[in-house]
Amino acid sequence: MTPSVPPARRRPGGRTSRIRAQVLDAVRAELAEHGYDGLTMDAVAARAGVHRTTVYRRWRDVGGLLADVFEAASDDDWQPRDTGSLQGDLAALNDEIQAALTAQPSVTAALIAASFRSEEAARAQRRLWEDRYARCEIVVSRAIRRGELPPHTDARRLLIAATAPLYHQLVLLRTPPDPHLPDHAAKTAALAASAGAFAKPPSSGDTSGA
Amino acid sequence: MTPSVPPARRRPGGRTSRIRAQVLDAVRAELAEHGYDGLTMDAVAARAGVHRTTVYRRWRDVGGLLADVFEAASDDDWQPRDTGSLQGDLAALNDEIQAALTAQPSVTAALIAASFRSEEAARAQRRLWEDRYARCEIVVSRAIRRGELPPHTDARRLLIAATAPLYHQLVLLRTPPDPHLPDHAAKTAALAASAGAFAKPPSSGDTSGA
Repeated sequence: MTPSVPPARRRPGGRTSRIRAQVLDAVRAELAEHGYDGLTMDAVAARAGVHRTTVYRRWRDVGGLLADVFEAASDDDWQPRDTGSLQGDLAALNDEIQAALTAQPSVTAALIAASFRSEEAARAQRRLWEDRYARCEIVVSRAIRRGELPPHTDARRLLIAATAPLYHQLVLLRTPPDPHLPDHAAKTAALAASAGAFAKPPSSGDTSGA
Repeated sequence: MTPSVPPARRRPGGRTSRIRAQVLDAVRAELAEHGYDGLTMDAVAARAGVHRTTVYRRWRDVGGLLADVFEAASDDDWQPRDTGSLQGDLAALNDEIQAALTAQPSVTAALIAASFRSEEAARAQRRLWEDRYARCEIVVSRAIRRGELPPHTDARRLLIAATAPLYHQLVLLRTPPDPHLPDHAAKTAALAASAGAFAKPPSSGDTSGA
């Protein structure tokens, strides 16, 4: 779900990590400005101020650059906000997603588009989303602890139900952003969850039972 | 939502419409087999058995061909199934969407991918989805007539909540198809709808009220 794709962290000390940060910043900037079609190894090298042979040696091609941008995006300490309620947590998450997808320019949207161009980028996008949804499962476990949800709740289905309408409207249907959508989609998923839509049979995960 | 993109109807009688049907069939086949990158005017003309100057004159470029495929897809009498219940109708719709997105090869998935490549295709995709969601509003009005939903229900939000998880999982997250997802997403949206998630304030649409 990558609410945001932050610049690569600059670890003081490593020349290698400094070069990586410069190169990945350049990839994001080129991608946001020119899209996948304008993204070339040479433009990235020039923008990053790094010798092109370094870029070719380390990242090989545009797919390698994109995969590393996704990889770097996982390398942060992002956590979903804790607002004290399931609906509030989902709304906060959706606010972040909507902001990332509607930024001008949006690196997140450009990366999603690039995932339709490069199999390597698609795999890396999938890994990043997997990482983000896994981190968000705490939203559901907190709600279970508060007694808002039954103990056997399918966290992933709930998170996808809450966030999918934003991606659908902004990325696929390409409708103008609706300022009420983040809250509304959060409320819809929370209502469905309270009504038991994501309850798993108690035997799920046990060895007994079908 | 284009559950399926049927071959263009062959209207007996018109040579022009016969040529259009041949060309659009060829576009779909080339797109499904080779993707956007393999889609060329010349390959389409050859496959359709139509002179290339005809294809260039009538469709100008690949964007024009794609836009016409979307246009032709609206030119059918598709209606959502009437199963007798809101949840059943939404599940039937989701079954069609899942089938279209997971067909091997999937013209629908290839068209969505192409909409990230061509602005003209993106606009045409948007118009087709608008057409499909508008046709699906009858699912909601039937549920209102049956007393399953309050009279002021936001049909579009409900339909998007019901269908978005399928697109999100199959098109963006690229997870393997989950045979339970069509039913589950339908049930989730129906439960949320029963809980009032898509109720609009009664004043909505009136000139009075905020």
